[in-house]
Amino acid sequence: MNSKQLFENIRKKKSFLCVGLDSDIDKIPGFLLDHDDPVFEFNRRIVDATAQFTVAYKPNAAFYECRGISGWQSLERTAGYIKQHYPDIFIIADAKRGDIGNTSKMYARAFFEGTNFDAVTVAPYMGEDSVTPFLSYDNRWVVLLALTSNKGADDFQYHNDNGTRLFEQVLHRSKQWGSIDNMMYVVGATRAEMLEDIRKIIPDHFLLIPGIGAQGGSLEEVVRYGMNAQCGLLVNSSRGIIFADTTSGFDRVAAQKAEELAGEMSDYLQNFNLI
Amino acid sequence: MNSKQLFENIRKKKSFLCVGLDSDIDKIPGFLLDHDDPVFEFNRRIVDATAQFTVAYKPNAAFYECRGISGWQSLERTAGYIKQHYPDIFIIADAKRGDIGNTSKMYARAFFEGTNFDAVTVAPYMGEDSVTPFLSYDNRWVVLLALTSNKGADDFQYHNDNGTRLFEQVLHRSKQWGSIDNMMYVVGATRAEMLEDIRKIIPDHFLLIPGIGAQGGSLEEVVRYGMNAQCGLLVNSSRGIIFADTTSGFDRVAAQKAEELAGEMSDYLQNFNLI
Repeated sequence: MNSKQLFENIRKKKSFLCVGLDSDIDKIPGFLLDHDDPVFEFNRRIVDATAQFTVAYKPNAAFYECRGISGWQSLERTAGYIKQHYPDIFIIADAKRGDIGNTSKMYARAFFEGTNFDAVTVAPYMGEDSVTPFLSYDNRWVVLLALTSNKGADDFQYHNDNGTRLFEQVLHRSKQWGSIDNMMYVVGATRAEMLEDIRKIIPDHFLLIPGIGAQGGSLEEVVRYGMNAQCGLLVNSSRGIIFADTTSGFDRVAAQKAEELAGEMSDYLQNFNLI
Repeated sequence: MNSKQLFENIRKKKSFLCVGLDSDIDKIPGFLLDHDDPVFEFNRRIVDATAQFTVAYKPNAAFYECRGISGWQSLERTAGYIKQHYPDIFIIADAKRGDIGNTSKMYARAFFEGTNFDAVTVAPYMGEDSVTPFLSYDNRWVVLLALTSNKGADDFQYHNDNGTRLFEQVLHRSKQWGSIDNMMYVVGATRAEMLEDIRKIIPDHFLLIPGIGAQGGSLEEVVRYGMNAQCGLLVNSSRGIIFADTTSGFDRVAAQKAEELAGEMSDYLQNFNLI
């Protein structure tokens, strides 16, 4: 999928919602634990209920890895299920990988050959050769951390070299490694005030925006400062959708929550004359 | 294991060698492919041959993840085998993880509860709350990336805020998050000239030093600038040991290479009056 196709999907669905599948086995409804693969069953029902409002899913690898081999099985089955039943939906492995060149090549293989992901999140600390191996696959994307939503972002991401903060340096350098068709950036919704500066450096790239909902970010501000002529936004919500309810009707409630967010997004897309 | 015990093991073995188990299935001797789990069989033989010269093993997760579930099985079996047969040897999961707090907690669980690792490498970009969840386990360590051995280290790690480069800022901040008994730092041997500055900030911490051998770093320089009164060094070699030979005698050749490096290390330890 390239950026144009992603935008077309956004227009079709009238939504730029990404649902985060942070499917902690300790938080899913108890009755699912009778299934062979409770986390996959949870994800399957969430996906079936929310797919019409959603252009992307983002399972976070940590919630799967912590269960060892059975967790990896749930993750692979989830990506496979989405790709099979909803081929237009963009699937991001939120794995925050990155290593020296010959090793990053192995991570790229893990996510782009062994499984069905369209994109993987990558941490920029180790620089160019840690990122470019992921960019050698057609139609696969790197989602590079720029300015994250957590408190710890303050520790290093604002490190200021003659007026250029680290997250800006990450944007300046890395935008030369790929294109708007294979790179996007993580910018936390809790840092929406920085989106104006960020758009000066990367006006045309897609941004993946976590931090709406439980973390306190505002969709309205994200749109005001971050939206561009191709929308340029994937806004993620995880806990606020998938754990909104823990009864047997959890998937219906998740669908309602997704529909609400998609409804707001549709309004913003109209205001910007994008649909 | 705490830093004193690690130093005791170094004195006992007269070595501060860490062997990197970057066990690429495409590079291991072909005759092993007949085994049910060729990579585990390769690792088992490497470990049995080199353990007497080695204080640590460091499997890099990427080389396992790229094989999906069967790769994770090889990784878990390898860690379990080392812990069972060589309980004094320190096992580092070179995974370069890191995410927002509640997610890093899941990664910590993956490496410290599900498996037998003593330490995991962590990328610092996301700051304090991405690192501290790993520090809540007794006798388990974070190995934080400071200054890496690859070319891409130049892209961001020297970003200079009023005379403090990013890798120095990582050291300044993060040394307050843990202690010399649960944190060490990655400094590439190819950056040995920086060890003098690094030792001013963290005189007492252990350093994990990759980049000897295939990547061109010098053991002599690492020791000159990096060794402290408790040795303070784990020097890693991967390809130079494990893939030194690909015949049926690969494990004997690996042992020779490990013994050579351990011999040099023993001389340095004597020169510093540490043994």
